[in-house]
Amino acid sequence: MSRVLNNTAPVKKSTRDRITELINKYQFQPNALARSLFKKETGMIGVILPDITNPFFPEVLSGLDQEARNKGYTFFLCDTVSTNTNGDSGEQYVRESEYLNILVEKQVDGIIMLGGRINLAKPSAELVNEVVEVCKRVPVLLINGNLPGEGMNRVYADEKVGAELATQHLIDLGHRDIAFVGGYRHMSNTLQRIQSFVKTMEKNGLKVRKEWMLDGGFSVESGKAFLNILLGLPERPTAVFCANDLVAIGVMKAANKAGLRVPHDLSLVGFDDIPYASNSIPELTTVSLKCYDVGRNAADLLHQMITKNKVSRNTKVRPELIVRESTAPPGGKGLKA
Amino acid sequence: MSRVLNNTAPVKKSTRDRITELINKYQFQPNALARSLFKKETGMIGVILPDITNPFFPEVLSGLDQEARNKGYTFFLCDTVSTNTNGDSGEQYVRESEYLNILVEKQVDGIIMLGGRINLAKPSAELVNEVVEVCKRVPVLLINGNLPGEGMNRVYADEKVGAELATQHLIDLGHRDIAFVGGYRHMSNTLQRIQSFVKTMEKNGLKVRKEWMLDGGFSVESGKAFLNILLGLPERPTAVFCANDLVAIGVMKAANKAGLRVPHDLSLVGFDDIPYASNSIPELTTVSLKCYDVGRNAADLLHQMITKNKVSRNTKVRPELIVRESTAPPGGKGLKA
Repeated sequence: MSRVLNNTAPVKKSTRDRITELINKYQFQPNALARSLFKKETGMIGVILPDITNPFFPEVLSGLDQEARNKGYTFFLCDTVSTNTNGDSGEQYVRESEYLNILVEKQVDGIIMLGGRINLAKPSAELVNEVVEVCKRVPVLLINGNLPGEGMNRVYADEKVGAELATQHLIDLGHRDIAFVGGYRHMSNTLQRIQSFVKTMEKNGLKVRKEWMLDGGFSVESGKAFLNILLGLPERPTAVFCANDLVAIGVMKAANKAGLRVPHDLSLVGFDDIPYASNSIPELTTVSLKCYDVGRNAADLLHQMITKNKVSRNTKVRPELIVRESTAPPGGKGLKA
Repeated sequence: MSRVLNNTAPVKKSTRDRITELINKYQFQPNALARSLFKKETGMIGVILPDITNPFFPEVLSGLDQEARNKGYTFFLCDTVSTNTNGDSGEQYVRESEYLNILVEKQVDGIIMLGGRINLAKPSAELVNEVVEVCKRVPVLLINGNLPGEGMNRVYADEKVGAELATQHLIDLGHRDIAFVGGYRHMSNTLQRIQSFVKTMEKNGLKVRKEWMLDGGFSVESGKAFLNILLGLPERPTAVFCANDLVAIGVMKAANKAGLRVPHDLSLVGFDDIPYASNSIPELTTVSLKCYDVGRNAADLLHQMITKNKVSRNTKVRPELIVRESTAPPGGKGLKA
């Protein structure tokens, strides 16, 4: 039937006639959809992500879109955002499952996953197996996450190098009293950042204070709450390393309300380098995860997987420290009580 | 053939057998794609927008996604962003054309367009006709734009009411010297905001000063440039109405660099109410265009169009003034020279 539709190879006249008759009878259109049934490629890919309104994801999508378009793909955007925002939402994983099914049903050529279950430190076997099953039918690529033990193809920013750059920058400025705030300890990206922060502090002979390690959110609101907790402690840090830029913006806003000047009284480093980072006053020192490059790499790699080229399983992108205005040597009144 | 695949109605045994034979012979899978050929619905819609990294669009998409998912649609994200950023990019319209073709090819059930050609004050006949032709085959809905004379279905925020709210707010605070900066005069949304600004000023017996009317950008960088131009004038405004929030952030940053405090020395109103607006220091007074609601409405309306329900051609969403911290009565040294 494909040979009839596409005229790609000789077909017996009787077969051609029979199929043509059926096509005419049932008004079967040789359009893109019909062709795709036989060519086995649809030119469609699926991108599953947790929340398009988090400015991290549009940056990744932008690079991904650019390269996917170059390669002739159109993509489904599958946003799994849920109304539950405690960071460990069963509802979100249900939506991921739904989208995985929909994308397989629609016969996409490949799937890219960001966030959600692939960022869990300990995903359930059920969540992992579901993706493994999909991989048997469709190429799947993970961005900035992993599913343990399954040898999935990945493109990711090196979280540990990023966190080391941020921490060492604060130490090099002379800070010894440094807090880490933000993220979720059930998420692997948070754990990697924390581990690298602790390791860098210890390498420099500095003490990590448990009461200055706060997690429980990636939002601006959570950043405000973290700073208010720090302000209530008997001893306070002179610098804060924030798990992402949104948290850093929240810390900056709460510091401002409390009459503290950034960076004179308090140094702040963010993480991600979303556009907020350069739009705030003062502009935020942060670690660029090269979202756009990661997105481009991912689209290119998925194309290689779809076209059965040999690809390296892990593509690591090196983050970069971006020094702006929110960090300075300790010197003001600081957060010191 | 559809009745064989879907088992929806009686089919003669001989017909069923012949089709089943063909299906088996050519490994024709009764999957979503195949079914969609006969059901005439694919459950897919297309969303064409100009730049996903502009935070206005993820907000709209978020509402759209929520409602589209409720209605059983998956959507293609078609980002027409071009490297040319002068605001009147032929390249962008070429990409819109490409995506319109791709979406028709893929037999989407409907298409939603945002930005690009539908925001042009005077789109060429060619740009208009292309969309009109697509409309004959697929339902098309426009968000916050229009194509003149063609009676397209639209969901849009009332730009004029929004601009009036912003202008009247500044006047009610006591400002008489008000600038309008941002946008592009070849775009209809900019023209509507400017017209409403001028009308509201005149209604209040206030003079609009030509040298305080600056256009040429929707970005943070353009906002900085606009303020620097105002600072160089012999007479200066005490308040600035910005064509969008990104421009307002740029004005705020340049004001800060120049040693001016917002709102004490200069009042600022933005437009859109993107997340930046509430994350800046000080928080930005702005006009909410209700992006999320507009997105939800659009998805619902497109569904009605797809399912051939009667829909009202124009759905207008009323904007809302959000008073935060960037506006106050004139009182500081202002921008007055």
